[in-house]
Amino acid sequence: MADSRTTSWTAAWELLLPAAAAPPRRRGRMLQSALREAVRSGRIAAGTRLPSSRELAADLGVSRGLVTDAYEQLTAEGYLSSSRGSGTWVSGAAQATVVREHKRPVSDGVPETGFLPGTPDLSLFPRAAWSAAHRRVLARVPHSGLGYPDPRGLPELRAAVAGLLTRRRGVVAAPESVVICSGVAQAMTLLGFTLAGLGHRAVAVEDPGSPEHTALLLAAGLTAAPVPLNAEGLSPAALAASGARAAQLTPCHQFPSGIAYSARRRFELLEWARAADGLLVEDDYDGDFRYDRAPVGALQGLDPARVAYTGSVSKSLAPGLRLGWMVIPEQLVDLVVERKRTMDLGNPALDQALLAEFIERGDYDRQLRRCQRAYRERRDALVAALAEHFPGTEVTGIAAGLHVIARLPRRYGPQARFLERAAQAGVALRPLADYACRPDGSPAHSPAHAPAGACAGDDGQVHLVMGYAHLSPARIARAVALIADARAPGLPATSR
Amino acid sequence: MADSRTTSWTAAWELLLPAAAAPPRRRGRMLQSALREAVRSGRIAAGTRLPSSRELAADLGVSRGLVTDAYEQLTAEGYLSSSRGSGTWVSGAAQATVVREHKRPVSDGVPETGFLPGTPDLSLFPRAAWSAAHRRVLARVPHSGLGYPDPRGLPELRAAVAGLLTRRRGVVAAPESVVICSGVAQAMTLLGFTLAGLGHRAVAVEDPGSPEHTALLLAAGLTAAPVPLNAEGLSPAALAASGARAAQLTPCHQFPSGIAYSARRRFELLEWARAADGLLVEDDYDGDFRYDRAPVGALQGLDPARVAYTGSVSKSLAPGLRLGWMVIPEQLVDLVVERKRTMDLGNPALDQALLAEFIERGDYDRQLRRCQRAYRERRDALVAALAEHFPGTEVTGIAAGLHVIARLPRRYGPQARFLERAAQAGVALRPLADYACRPDGSPAHSPAHAPAGACAGDDGQVHLVMGYAHLSPARIARAVALIADARAPGLPATSR
Repeated sequence: MADSRTTSWTAAWELLLPAAAAPPRRRGRMLQSALREAVRSGRIAAGTRLPSSRELAADLGVSRGLVTDAYEQLTAEGYLSSSRGSGTWVSGAAQATVVREHKRPVSDGVPETGFLPGTPDLSLFPRAAWSAAHRRVLARVPHSGLGYPDPRGLPELRAAVAGLLTRRRGVVAAPESVVICSGVAQAMTLLGFTLAGLGHRAVAVEDPGSPEHTALLLAAGLTAAPVPLNAEGLSPAALAASGARAAQLTPCHQFPSGIAYSARRRFELLEWARAADGLLVEDDYDGDFRYDRAPVGALQGLDPARVAYTGSVSKSLAPGLRLGWMVIPEQLVDLVVERKRTMDLGNPALDQALLAEFIERGDYDRQLRRCQRAYRERRDALVAALAEHFPGTEVTGIAAGLHVIARLPRRYGPQARFLERAAQAGVALRPLADYACRPDGSPAHSPAHAPAGACAGDDGQVHLVMGYAHLSPARIARAVALIADARAPGLPATSR
Repeated sequence: MADSRTTSWTAAWELLLPAAAAPPRRRGRMLQSALREAVRSGRIAAGTRLPSSRELAADLGVSRGLVTDAYEQLTAEGYLSSSRGSGTWVSGAAQATVVREHKRPVSDGVPETGFLPGTPDLSLFPRAAWSAAHRRVLARVPHSGLGYPDPRGLPELRAAVAGLLTRRRGVVAAPESVVICSGVAQAMTLLGFTLAGLGHRAVAVEDPGSPEHTALLLAAGLTAAPVPLNAEGLSPAALAASGARAAQLTPCHQFPSGIAYSARRRFELLEWARAADGLLVEDDYDGDFRYDRAPVGALQGLDPARVAYTGSVSKSLAPGLRLGWMVIPEQLVDLVVERKRTMDLGNPALDQALLAEFIERGDYDRQLRRCQRAYRERRDALVAALAEHFPGTEVTGIAAGLHVIARLPRRYGPQARFLERAAQAGVALRPLADYACRPDGSPAHSPAHAPAGACAGDDGQVHLVMGYAHLSPARIARAVALIADARAPGLPATSR
């Protein structure tokens, strides 16, 4: 130990002592960890010669075998080197590493509540029923059910989903045409890669539309071609002009505008798909919820060879479950499944068995009814609160889903100031303009662009996409009142 | 109804009658379904004019409102058309569709048992503890925990995994460098896409190696560059010559050869990575299981800036859970997480909370100890059975993991016949030659190539990769005896 590097060894000493004092059962492992840490942290410098195992054992008061084991272990791992005759030393390659914490900026003034769309009421999640289903599944699933899953999905879940969609959504589905995936986003990614592999370059998207789909298409190597909507749905002429041979649609309840595609438009689009050898990708994100009549059946039912249907439990149970489905034309099934395989080998097996059980026992239908009741009540509460505090507000779109489109009378503008005041009052709002596509197909409110407040409509009129599903009727009323108060600070709330 | 198409309407009649007889509560929905089905199946041809709602209601004995609702619903969906004055008719676009069943060939003579590697013993899965953890998690997780997950993984799981890997595998991991994914396959896919995005064209893979990785790299738009192994690990000279700037490795227990990379080779590869600005991707697929000494720590611990570490619960709990992790260099984290986001938005939230709970309570360590005991016993049983029935067999590789490499004495060859006889006796075997890469980097035993039996080594000597983890010691002994009997039919089992 009469080495110029003795100091660094001494500095490591304090790391080793606790190991020596540990209970006998854990002593060996702790000694190895401490020595590894001492090398890694640089407390023992590269090149430092270690005391002999006999010496170190005596110094620490531990058995020599423990020290020999530690030296051998760390030599095998590359932290130490040894050779007959020159003992054991710290090898040169182990680098001191401090993994820096990613500091993320904490934003100030995050609104406490708000009408941002996209979230269901997570308090409606049926915890007790879900937990019971998990217990039943674990009690009955065979051992083989814990192995690598079928990448296309568990057969019993595909059968249950086919039955569910046939019954509730008018989808033409056999278990063989169903692929289980983690949700509509993954469905879009799977189809995106598949279409790219078939030579597609662009996929048409609705403008305004869901900005997330654009990002997914880009990641799959495609571009998004924004195609404008009119009152009946995506414009077929503009679609034909876009050059895309596939289009992503929300025909049962367009997001965000809230319209349902007309029957005529459904046909025109199917005609386009047949003529162009194209594919329509139907995103049925909230098709279960309709409040004034039975939900309109899926577009897919009209021509299953030309429509890929996608849906999930994200609005009906919880997005955190990451469970969804696709019903796809026969000629695409193998390609999509192979892509699913290389992406994740398939969805978790127990989650799938659980959902199959949940559907088969009628628990899923019960949950849909429960959500339907709650969301209708909330929509009514929002429409009433808007009428009370912002008289003259026009609520457009069908009575469905988890959001409304509200256009406030001109006197409440300009929109930028309206949004700012609402945010100051703790109520987050999203303007419809956020969902317009930019000329390059990128969404208007992607973080790279201007903040939401700057995206006011041309005329400055307040035009909002308001999600209501996650708020109780009382909170909805309170939040709308808060906005009204904030708009005219110091004055009593409007039109009481 | 004095229409030439009356026949097709009559044919649909039988579909509608059961709906009319249904309980009042379900009658409306059943009528709609029946009518939709009648159109879809072609029983009512396109262009057929339907009876008026009054007529049909009278014929069926149901209220007129039900029929009106059904007509409106199917008109909105596009199955029917209507106009004032000319009534309601079946529209032209709804196509009769029969989704064909995918018939998959059922293979004959599938071996009943076998030593195919890759599967743990699924009967060791701790069902009771897993179920209890699920219940506890559902009882305590806040509602927000059911929302869209963080694509990098649940914070508490990343912390638990960082602790686990630091403690058990000598990995340098902070929660910020951990990304939760669905397993090593998805980790490879995520890294593959990320590397391709950074301009990589090829990734070096071990030859022999795991054929699955090659397919994953191809799907990510990369090619696999096979690099030969020698006794110390992947050859650094061949790696440098490959032109790849990333390499996928199994340094703690090479698959399939069973060697552990030497400490010197670890350094040489890290030196290569630093000089080439390259990345080593460590697949620690079975690093928890070592039977003769403590497991060798992960390569990643020596230089976390140059090694991406990947692992999963597939060998310790069950592949069906689809849960794994990556610990990646800081500069790659954001790119990998963004790719994960576009691929599936993140792993299921409850599954992650469950595993975090399982690790934190010590259940995961208990499970590892249980598997370690079972697998050591099975390895011993296999080695003993080989010694008994095939004396002179050389078992190579470290005493670790879930498989051994067995080279039988020359007299048991040629390999092709040996494999065939074993398969006839109901025992599946996989020769080492199956894992050799072809010149184009594709695995030797991909389905497009010659069947396994044709892949005998040059000299016809029997050289097997034998997975034993999924078989009890008794079944292992029985299966080896079966092979021995099959080899010399009619003769008593060898060397009893």
